Amino acid sequence: MIVGKVVGSLWATRKDEKLNGFKFLVIEPLYKNDGAKDYFVAADNAGAGVSDTVLITTGGGARASIENPEIPVDAVIVGVVDSIDIETE
Amino acid sequence: MIVGKVVGSLWATRKDEKLNGFKFLVIEPLYKNDGAKDYFVAADNAGAGVSDTVLITTGGGARASIENPEIPVDAVIVGVVDSIDIETE
Amino acid sequence: MIVGKVVGSLWATRKDEKLNGFKFLVIEPLYKNDGAKDYFVAADNAGAGVSDTVLITTGGGARASIENPEIPVDAVIVGVVDSIDIETE
Amino acid sequence: MIVGKVVGSLWATRKDEKLNGFKFLVIEPLYKNDGAKDYFVAADNAGAGVSDTVLITTGGGARASIENPEIPVDAVIVGVVDSIDIETE
Amino acid sequence: MIVGKVVGSLWATRKDEKLNGFKFLVIEPLYKNDGAKDYFVAADNAGAGVSDTVLITTGGGARASIENPEIPVDAVIVGVVDSIDIETE
Repeated sequence: MIVGKVVGSLWATRKDEKLNGFKFLVIEPLYKNDGAKDYFVAADNAGAGVSDTVLITTGGGARASIENPEIPVDAVIVGVVDSIDIETE
Repeated sequence: MIVGKVVGSLWATRKDEKLNGFKFLVIEPLYKNDGAKDYFVAADNAGAGVSDTVLITTGGGARASIENPEIPVDAVIVGVVDSIDIETE
Repeated sequence: MIVGKVVGSLWATRKDEKLNGFKFLVIEPLYKNDGAKDYFVAADNAGAGVSDTVLITTGGGARASIENPEIPVDAVIVGVVDSIDIETE
Repeated sequence: MIVGKVVGSLWATRKDEKLNGFKFLVIEPLYKNDGAKDYFVAADNAGAGVSDTVLITTGGGARASIENPEIPVDAVIVGVVDSIDIETE
Repeated sequence: MIVGKVVGSLWATRKDEKLNGFKFLVIEPLYKNDGAKDYFVAADNAGAGVSDTVLITTGGGARASIENPEIPVDAVIVGVVDSIDIETE
């Protein structure tokens, strides 16, 4: 899974109707050591908001989170992160 | 999901016949902060056209959008983006 | 989907017997703006040959093209490209 | 599969309840020759702990490890590595 | 599919028991033109050994090779390569 920060929102009126009712948030990946912080979009399943640090599951696991394999998403926010402990030696 | 801009179209007469009837658009990814804007091709399921900013779902989620897992695509345009709000601190 | 050019062929006598009968072509991705044109291998399902520009579907969509999810491939040529129109502003 | 080192842990109280009971570890990929050691998060299915070198399976294979395709994860630690022998010529 | 060279082996005593009996080989990808030859690990289904050039299938296709979707792998060696002909113009 990917750790990211919610940096914005996306709106699309004209879309696959199976996406109705989902909130689409723009994610900046964190812990990308090469500096390539490409934004992507995830549907929210954890009540996340802008500036939250979140855990995102991709692919079939994303559709498992929303419990419907027929929904055309490939990234879903599955948790709002409380803390991350990195142990450096 | 990926946000991209439709920059062109692709035609292929000789192809897997299961692809007949689909419109194939060339996508330039947006919000790629490392500058690596590799074009890719997505089937359209949102009535998109050149210069539209679109939302693209990949993998099994793409086939969920067209509601047929037998269609050999791995990227589908699922929405035409109205607006993206990025909040910078 | 990915647009690529067929640049060669691959032979493997000792292989998973479920791959018997497939033609394996070496693909150079096109439209890779960062210059990272890593070759990969795709099974052919469109009658492609060396120097053709082709459309490739990856993952489960690749196995959908050959209409058999039991075949261990992850990239299939699904079309031979006639033309690509990129509109620059 | 990916070889990585466990460098930390992640906690999320507010999350998809299907993730309850899993331990989430932060992974630093090893053998990344370009220096891009982007951290990611994997659920643990091998009793791993910080500083262990581990083997991680991604995608549908990750859900196969936990024997429940309904769990929204995309990376699972499937083994604690004893040794890796690289033969250089 | 990816072409790679077998450069080593990996041992893990403590692992998901569904992985028992598989041989895990360390792969150096070939034909990576950007120099980013990140090693990864694949289960062997073609009788490969160190220094062999091999063809690797990833994702669901990897599990198709071992004919058991319950095995938690995401990369399998499906062939030992005899020859690769690259045609340069």
